[in-house]
Amino acid sequence: MQKHIKFFKSLLGDENAHFDDAHRLAYCYDATKKRHLPDGVLYPRDENDVSEILKYCNENKIPIVARGAGSGFTGGALSVNGGLVLALEKHMNKILEIDMQNMVAVVEPGVINMDLQRAVQAVGLFYPPDPASQDYSTIGGNVSENAGGMRAAKYGITKDYVMAIRAVLPNGDIIRAGKRTIKDVAGYNVAGILIASEGTLAVITQITLKLIAKPKMSKTAMGIFADVKTAMNAVYKTMAAGVTPVAMEFLDALCIKAVNDRFNKGLPSEAGAILISDVDGDTETKLDADLAVIRDVFMQNGAIDFKVAKDEAQAADIWFSRRNCSQAINCYGTLKLNEDITVPRSKLPELLDEIEKVSQKYGIKVPCFGHTGDGNVHTNVMVVDKNDEKQVENGHKAIEEIFKIAVDLGGTLSGEHGIGISKAEFMPLAFNEAEMNLFRRIKMAFDPNNILNPGKMGL
Amino acid sequence: MQKHIKFFKSLLGDENAHFDDAHRLAYCYDATKKRHLPDGVLYPRDENDVSEILKYCNENKIPIVARGAGSGFTGGALSVNGGLVLALEKHMNKILEIDMQNMVAVVEPGVINMDLQRAVQAVGLFYPPDPASQDYSTIGGNVSENAGGMRAAKYGITKDYVMAIRAVLPNGDIIRAGKRTIKDVAGYNVAGILIASEGTLAVITQITLKLIAKPKMSKTAMGIFADVKTAMNAVYKTMAAGVTPVAMEFLDALCIKAVNDRFNKGLPSEAGAILISDVDGDTETKLDADLAVIRDVFMQNGAIDFKVAKDEAQAADIWFSRRNCSQAINCYGTLKLNEDITVPRSKLPELLDEIEKVSQKYGIKVPCFGHTGDGNVHTNVMVVDKNDEKQVENGHKAIEEIFKIAVDLGGTLSGEHGIGISKAEFMPLAFNEAEMNLFRRIKMAFDPNNILNPGKMGL
Ligand SMILES: Cc1cc2nc3c(=O)[nH]c(=O)nc-3n(C[C@H](O)[C@H](O)[C@H](O)COP(=O)(O)OP(=O)(O)OC[C@H]3O[C@@H](n4cnc5c(N)ncnc54)[C@H](O)[C@@H]3O)c2cc1C
Ligand SMILES: Cc1cc2nc3c(=O)[nH]c(=O)nc-3n(C[C@H](O)[C@H](O)[C@H](O)COP(=O)(O)OP(=O)(O)OC[C@H]3O[C@@H](n4cnc5c(N)ncnc54)[C@H](O)[C@@H]3O)c2cc1C
Repeated sequence: MQKHIKFFKSLLGDENAHFDDAHRLAYCYDATKKRHLPDGVLYPRDENDVSEILKYCNENKIPIVARGAGSGFTGGALSVNGGLVLALEKHMNKILEIDMQNMVAVVEPGVINMDLQRAVQAVGLFYPPDPASQDYSTIGGNVSENAGGMRAAKYGITKDYVMAIRAVLPNGDIIRAGKRTIKDVAGYNVAGILIASEGTLAVITQITLKLIAKPKMSKTAMGIFADVKTAMNAVYKTMAAGVTPVAMEFLDALCIKAVNDRFNKGLPSEAGAILISDVDGDTETKLDADLAVIRDVFMQNGAIDFKVAKDEAQAADIWFSRRNCSQAINCYGTLKLNEDITVPRSKLPELLDEIEKVSQKYGIKVPCFGHTGDGNVHTNVMVVDKNDEKQVENGHKAIEEIFKIAVDLGGTLSGEHGIGISKAEFMPLAFNEAEMNLFRRIKMAFDPNNILNPGKMGL
Repeated sequence: MQKHIKFFKSLLGDENAHFDDAHRLAYCYDATKKRHLPDGVLYPRDENDVSEILKYCNENKIPIVARGAGSGFTGGALSVNGGLVLALEKHMNKILEIDMQNMVAVVEPGVINMDLQRAVQAVGLFYPPDPASQDYSTIGGNVSENAGGMRAAKYGITKDYVMAIRAVLPNGDIIRAGKRTIKDVAGYNVAGILIASEGTLAVITQITLKLIAKPKMSKTAMGIFADVKTAMNAVYKTMAAGVTPVAMEFLDALCIKAVNDRFNKGLPSEAGAILISDVDGDTETKLDADLAVIRDVFMQNGAIDFKVAKDEAQAADIWFSRRNCSQAINCYGTLKLNEDITVPRSKLPELLDEIEKVSQKYGIKVPCFGHTGDGNVHTNVMVVDKNDEKQVENGHKAIEEIFKIAVDLGGTLSGEHGIGISKAEFMPLAFNEAEMNLFRRIKMAFDPNNILNPGKMGL
């Protein structure tokens, strides 16, 4: 190890290669709250540093884990096999270019999502992907997890905005994938496979993102339903009606109660479920026309009421409730097992029905909210006492049953949070041996020595 | 070979395994007009047939080429190394499902694009990708080349509509990639890498496609410009103005003249270039508002005139001219070397300028048209006499220079037609050794014995 420390210190300087406990501790966690101490932390200054570091790690078979903000929900940034953390947020955090003519931004991976949002909005452009972690998560992390957000129903997710990537392979090779063009079919779609690859194939060092013109205005509305099933039914009816709301977010009764108790922003306490919908566009007429369609579909499909936010303050209150829901439901337990299963929209009523049965079977509360516009439900299995082994075991059983339900309904283990270590054991629920083998061969094609984020994704 | 013939005839029946000259000839060509005789032609009836065939070919190292309609422009469906053609249009051509609730279609690979368009429009839905070959090209071919079309400026290209793929690997393994969900981040994005892989990684046996609600109406307009450069400038100014036309197609003076001479549909003969723009939506007001923006940007950026088609007949005439342009320009030569380079939109003026210089240098006419809304220009190097070796050589030199120009401007060798054999030799212009090596390792991960469409993509 002393030899390695010497190498990295001489390559990066003392200030960018750390092996002390303080630094190791500072990079041992992510949003899963699990902890794995790395052996050291490196701050590469640029792509060349990344290349030299990887080449050395590859030759010496040292595991290395790229890291953005460490806000991942599935343990992607954890050094589960020791080795080094490659922390990209420190130096490689610059917006390199905002190209107004082609509506493109070029960024380093450590740029924080919100910083990019602000920079492009300042010049009248718009970068839609807005994970709830936008204040701290990085674009590199967003690309590596293919992060979604509130606006996905209309605008899609991170992958829909990635035009080109520069990355470093484990052998130190620097590759470019994709172009600053809308269309490019020369060569294999390497950018496509790097998206959502959770740092297991290459380290992303530069990202070219598509921007769009900023919509001039938006409005927020809320549909109030007596029960979850009716609400879920209205979701897919609305999406099929030809209107494309920016957001179609959902909170169930447990979530509504938790948010009201905690923040008191005036969600309707009598509701069994609410749907929050944003529409945007360039004219008031367009917005009102869209809202009229949504109102009609909601009311024809069992809504009790439909309220349009009167002003920005009201809209902000509604969104505050939605964004802080995850935090508020902690009142239901000391351990939250939260997953982000996704099903075809028409299966949402059935999914929520089945989750309710699981909840009753184990006597555990499972508050649900999420991005129903794209079939993505955040299910939160709330274990009352995390020190009670039996309860925790039941919680995990409940989660496994929920995964099975999602997959049986044609859905996926993860709509946006990825697999990491948290869902690794469930991969065989979703993929057969042939598919897992193909994943392993792809991994080998990029990373034959298995140095990049080993032990992730169930490979 | 006799042994192989026996195997395939017993597997598929005499009627689905052909080794006679008539069948071999019928499957020896594509739109490149090059010819390569396969050793035999197989008509698989279903995915299991495909699996058995591939497993056998893999064990016996027999090259095999999947084929849709054979309308490819780069030789993708040609058996350049002999072996077998796997013809999917014969039996595997069924629309399996149109799921109105989730707005999804599930098809076999041999379904013709236009048949799908019609089927989904009949139920009020819409499948946007419309390559000019839509009357005969197959969805399997569209996915394998990532086909574009006239509507890409607003609606994107084939890849934007592929949600899930079933495919057979060379070892016979049947894999599923992607889901009928908007979001899915579990496992590597295998569907993403199969798109545009030109039949070199796996045989696609089923495709799940995203559909959208059918826009209620559309209008067509034409901007008339004195010269190409002014028109190209107006393209990116329009796209950056916040309006998203369905199409932003371009014809230069040579194209306009050729189309007028041949079909006389009334394009403005005085124009140095025209831009054809479609807008669509659900209300007349919205369409007119969009057209007003486009008119303003065009006129502020040097347009001589702006005409909105008065009725469907006029719109049809304009589109007829655009769609038949490729055919009309054959008047300029007996050999057409046509390429589909793509550059960032803001580089279009420079690109067309440089192409003009190449044209003058070699004394060869290079009529250009294409999908300028996404930076995609069809450049046609017209060799007057295809039997004059010197002229042909100059034509190829001109093409090579044009590729270099495109790549230097940050563009790509191919926006939609792929690499196949036609552009294989130019891959090193666009990709460095590290990138080519990565492509080769990806190919190996899927197809270690190199039986699937060997000799393509410059691998
Ligand atoms: C409160 C909260 C709300 C959230 N809301 C959402 C949400 O709405 N939608 C959503 O999708 N997610 C959400 N997340 C999850 C998380 O924020 C996202 O996954 C985010 O994209 C992670 O970014 P990060 O910079 O924190 O990445 P990290 O956690 O640091 O890393 C995540 C993974 O990416 C890899 N990685 C990071 N950078 C690179 C790189 N440059 N090259 C290669 N690999 C790299 C890591 O190795 C790791 O595997 C939320 C998280 C929290 C805590
Ligand atoms: C007049 C004309 C106009 C055209 N206009 C356009 C246009 O506007 N936009 C555009 O993008 N292209 C256009 N093309 C090119 C061509 O039509 C497209 O590339 C189309 O997608 C090819 O489809 P196909 O069914 O003919 O495929 P084929 O030519 O049969 O095959 C193309 C490639 O796909 C592979 N393949 C086919 N099916 C499968 C499968 N099931 N699994 C694995 N691999 C498979 C083949 O091996 C081959 O490499 C045009 C062609 C012509 C002749």
